[in-house]
Amino acid sequence: MNYPNGIKKTFKISASNRGMTLEQELNDTNLYYRNNDMAVIYKKPTPITINKVDYKNRKDAVIKEAHFMTPSTTDYNGIYNGKYIDFEAKETRKSYFPLANIHAHQIEHLKKIKKCGGIGFIIVKFILDKETYLLEIDKLENFLDNNKRKSIPKEYFIQNGYLIKQGYKPYLDYLKIIDVIKER
Amino acid sequence: MNYPNGIKKTFKISASNRGMTLEQELNDTNLYYRNNDMAVIYKKPTPITINKVDYKNRKDAVIKEAHFMTPSTTDYNGIYNGKYIDFEAKETRKSYFPLANIHAHQIEHLKKIKKCGGIGFIIVKFILDKETYLLEIDKLENFLDNNKRKSIPKEYFIQNGYLIKQGYKPYLDYLKIIDVIKER
Repeated sequence: MNYPNGIKKTFKISASNRGMTLEQELNDTNLYYRNNDMAVIYKKPTPITINKVDYKNRKDAVIKEAHFMTPSTTDYNGIYNGKYIDFEAKETRKSYFPLANIHAHQIEHLKKIKKCGGIGFIIVKFILDKETYLLEIDKLENFLDNNKRKSIPKEYFIQNGYLIKQGYKPYLDYLKIIDVIKER
Repeated sequence: MNYPNGIKKTFKISASNRGMTLEQELNDTNLYYRNNDMAVIYKKPTPITINKVDYKNRKDAVIKEAHFMTPSTTDYNGIYNGKYIDFEAKETRKSYFPLANIHAHQIEHLKKIKKCGGIGFIIVKFILDKETYLLEIDKLENFLDNNKRKSIPKEYFIQNGYLIKQGYKPYLDYLKIIDVIKER
């Protein structure tokens, strides 16, 4: 069952991690980071507007009508080593990243984060290649400022981003890349 | 119309700010901070589990059945001056703060934030006195470690917390207190 914004209600994690969505991989990784006191990073709940609620009692309220809202921020944020972390994560089946997948105000949000001293980036999974890249907001900005294209070629991620190594625990150790970025 | 966790679907901001809920005051304040490039702090969406969705098309999905979830984190987080900020905000009509208003895992969450180098606290509004206090997580922890009471007397907030000055723009300038905390 699929919801807008790629929300899945339930998911199973297989031993081989085969067929996990990027969201599942990141939830799994963030849980590992939290359990090991490495970082506190969560996916935000999906923003909705509620129109109708049925009450039996305060503990047993059922939402009977609600709508998905356009998110005003990114999906993930939290703290790592005293640093504020903020990112959006997207999957694509193409060999390029369609810019329609990311909202203009999410890019604006990431720029503001950088301005405030935080670390902002996007994580993009190329499903067919089984490769996931981290691209910092200034590199994304640089692409948008210098291109009229409606998509970012994978080559740009290879040249300007970081391939996230896949492992077992955690599955997608993207904080290793943050260490590199911070030392630069 | 009231929802669990004090969620309000819509609200009006009167010129005098009379009758604003704490959530409205904080949303107003955070909007001011964002618009003036001072900080990027948002209230997280209410966590829900979705059971049923009606689709006409991808843009016009209507949630037909959903339930409120117990939040695993606090309501507010973001960045200010390079620092990660995380807090829970609560109102009370009592002359003390009932500890039932805050979940044990929210306190654990705030402790983890502090451990990771972030700034964690609670904001409590005493509605009848029209006074709002900021109390750091270590002061909250200290109270819990040394008391068997099920509520925190307001006196403890006066002695160990900070009264947030109310103004016009922004209405509840709690970041001023963060400046004091950081210099200490």
